[in-house]
Amino acid sequence: MTALDERALQTSIRDLGVQARAAGRVLRSLPSERKVAALHAIAAGLRERHAEILTANARDVEAAVSSGLPDAMVARLKLDARALETIAADVLAVSRLPDPVGETTPEAMQPSGIRVATRRVPLGVLGVIYESRPNVTVDVAALGVMSGNAVILRGGKETIHSNASLGDVVAAALASVGLPPTAVQVIRDPARERVLELLKLDDLVDAIIPRGGAGLHRFCVENATVPVIVGGIGVVHLYLDHSFTHTAEDVQTAVQIIRNAKVQKPSACNALDTLLIDRAALDSLPVIARDLAAHGVTLRADPDAQAVLDAAGVSAQPAQDADFGTEFLALTASVKVVAGLDEALDFIAAHGNHTDVILSRDPAQIDRFVQDVDSAAVVVNASPRFNDGGQLGLGAEVAISTQKLHARGPMALRELTTTKWVVMGNGQVRG
Amino acid sequence: MTALDERALQTSIRDLGVQARAAGRVLRSLPSERKVAALHAIAAGLRERHAEILTANARDVEAAVSSGLPDAMVARLKLDARALETIAADVLAVSRLPDPVGETTPEAMQPSGIRVATRRVPLGVLGVIYESRPNVTVDVAALGVMSGNAVILRGGKETIHSNASLGDVVAAALASVGLPPTAVQVIRDPARERVLELLKLDDLVDAIIPRGGAGLHRFCVENATVPVIVGGIGVVHLYLDHSFTHTAEDVQTAVQIIRNAKVQKPSACNALDTLLIDRAALDSLPVIARDLAAHGVTLRADPDAQAVLDAAGVSAQPAQDADFGTEFLALTASVKVVAGLDEALDFIAAHGNHTDVILSRDPAQIDRFVQDVDSAAVVVNASPRFNDGGQLGLGAEVAISTQKLHARGPMALRELTTTKWVVMGNGQVRG
Repeated sequence: MTALDERALQTSIRDLGVQARAAGRVLRSLPSERKVAALHAIAAGLRERHAEILTANARDVEAAVSSGLPDAMVARLKLDARALETIAADVLAVSRLPDPVGETTPEAMQPSGIRVATRRVPLGVLGVIYESRPNVTVDVAALGVMSGNAVILRGGKETIHSNASLGDVVAAALASVGLPPTAVQVIRDPARERVLELLKLDDLVDAIIPRGGAGLHRFCVENATVPVIVGGIGVVHLYLDHSFTHTAEDVQTAVQIIRNAKVQKPSACNALDTLLIDRAALDSLPVIARDLAAHGVTLRADPDAQAVLDAAGVSAQPAQDADFGTEFLALTASVKVVAGLDEALDFIAAHGNHTDVILSRDPAQIDRFVQDVDSAAVVVNASPRFNDGGQLGLGAEVAISTQKLHARGPMALRELTTTKWVVMGNGQVRG
Repeated sequence: MTALDERALQTSIRDLGVQARAAGRVLRSLPSERKVAALHAIAAGLRERHAEILTANARDVEAAVSSGLPDAMVARLKLDARALETIAADVLAVSRLPDPVGETTPEAMQPSGIRVATRRVPLGVLGVIYESRPNVTVDVAALGVMSGNAVILRGGKETIHSNASLGDVVAAALASVGLPPTAVQVIRDPARERVLELLKLDDLVDAIIPRGGAGLHRFCVENATVPVIVGGIGVVHLYLDHSFTHTAEDVQTAVQIIRNAKVQKPSACNALDTLLIDRAALDSLPVIARDLAAHGVTLRADPDAQAVLDAAGVSAQPAQDADFGTEFLALTASVKVVAGLDEALDFIAAHGNHTDVILSRDPAQIDRFVQDVDSAAVVVNASPRFNDGGQLGLGAEVAISTQKLHARGPMALRELTTTKWVVMGNGQVRG
């Protein structure tokens, strides 16, 4: 029997929650060294037990192929020795991040004589629900343990054998360093009812983090009584101001940034969706559009942009209303001509929330853009693809939050913690 | 017609949300001085228009009396000139708090050459749902405006005329200083369907903050697609260690702290629910129990505590299982004898989340208690009643969060904000 078969009749989701809660109580008081040791053991386990992990993964790949999953999806779930090595290296990278747990604010004496401070503590128990890509199982396990949280993981059913095997390796690694193996638990029953049970376990689970498409996020938001951190979904705008098109060098930089924004990884949430082009910068549109077309991008242009592109002999499709405020996740982008910064800001206020870029040489404009745009990340004269945990200096990320409560943008170790008040007295009562 | 009648057919909840969003866009970029001016105008309006507010309030009081509402409830909703003056003074106190909006972390240069920082920004639009007490309408309006947020308020139907009138005064004050009156909107339709609509307005409202009983919180958690900040509900424990009972002075301090914890405001969420007493401190139980009884407290004791109280001739009721892990909100407390710190910690891990107190003279024990107890506030040798925005130095509070995401404990201005990433580049693309 495989690891998965053995656990087919595993404990209920509530039992997983109870065990996670108990494990979280152990993890929350661990010194950093013991968490680092756990991550080292996980990385070692991944290397030592690669054969068994790849065998489990092969079952998933076989099932995916025979069920007719598209090649791109099959490629996403396939592991090999090199991929496993990368996953192990990522675990070690997380082990080198500074541990935020235990950070304490300076004590402040209050008029009553009590001394108060806040201390950074783990959230407790995290439920992470994701699709495809088995590396997420290990990434989240590592971030969870390093931040002192217990995690309950529910991956896609296409990777269920891989995830069960990775979960076994992680659990054994935790046990090998004297930590509760239930600090990282993988839900091995693919039934959707198990997800619903997890979403409603609000007495035991402190946060749900979905990673996946809009449908998954919506399902979590609509069904969870546990607080959900929504992320990943969002529209990315780039406003090109005429002040960034006065020299050939600037135009070339704009072309490169826009290409990078759209082409480097079109399936990413921080890829460009809509180009807002200043009417006074329209001369630059043909060169930008030709470059995008040469990289396989289909443009959907509003009538004013279309007219310019037609005159220049560059092909584009007419944009429909639905092409604005839409996340394409593909080699498609919409283009809209705006009268200037004000119209761009109004448009972004109506459609933006994830990452928005301005290309401008006007400091006053840049200030206004940075101040007014209310998105997880505002980017000046660079690619929106920098809205990423690694690129922003967090070292890793469990997800990119696009909501405003708790965490915004990439979530790494600190974003998996909270604080508690510590009040030191010597007999004070409240008057 | 009164203000309420005029708006009986007011705009839909979605329209309120759209207007709040637009108002929030104005508020989020205001310098502190303009927000301070708005709060001054609100305080002045409350003073100038007190007659009309008290007339509206009298309608609510009359309706409450004739519908047979208990006297204590009627007293909670009744306003007079002095209460209005206190409310105005509270608004001015909020205007003196430091404004967290615009605080920026130091820029960090990344290997790519981009410079990154986070800037503190308002959440955007808050929905606050509360019961009784019309002062909350103004408190939340003041905290919302000062933190740069638009707020949509839905008070209890017992105070609907008072809230409508207070909402009018606030809106007029905002308009008088050139701000959108829709920055603070009061839902004037008492139908529960309007609450449901607000809870599901997740494209327009950034957070729901309920203030009220457990039923209200549960209703919000179960129905909202907008993120909810749950608070207020929770069990308060006090562990009395034998090391705090070795001198008559310490015993006297313990008696005073326990009395303050239970008696000063039994209806508050930070009042004592369960006394956990070290078996080696049982000699002190009779004096504590006698003092509580003298202040009208009913004790529900476990068998071991009951035996001690019986022998000392102090009356107590036998505790049922349901008396532990229960928030009494009344002059009732449960008492349980524990073998020492370990058993107290296990008990609190199972039942605590709000405020937990240790009375001890043993520094090692205190450290363990502070580290292990995972509640919004951990209090050493003082009353749990200090878990309050004013007492902890926040100056005010919109609610006390007992969840872990976003904010924990009293929520004041900073807790009504979030951050955005600001990325400054000079042409960088991602490699």
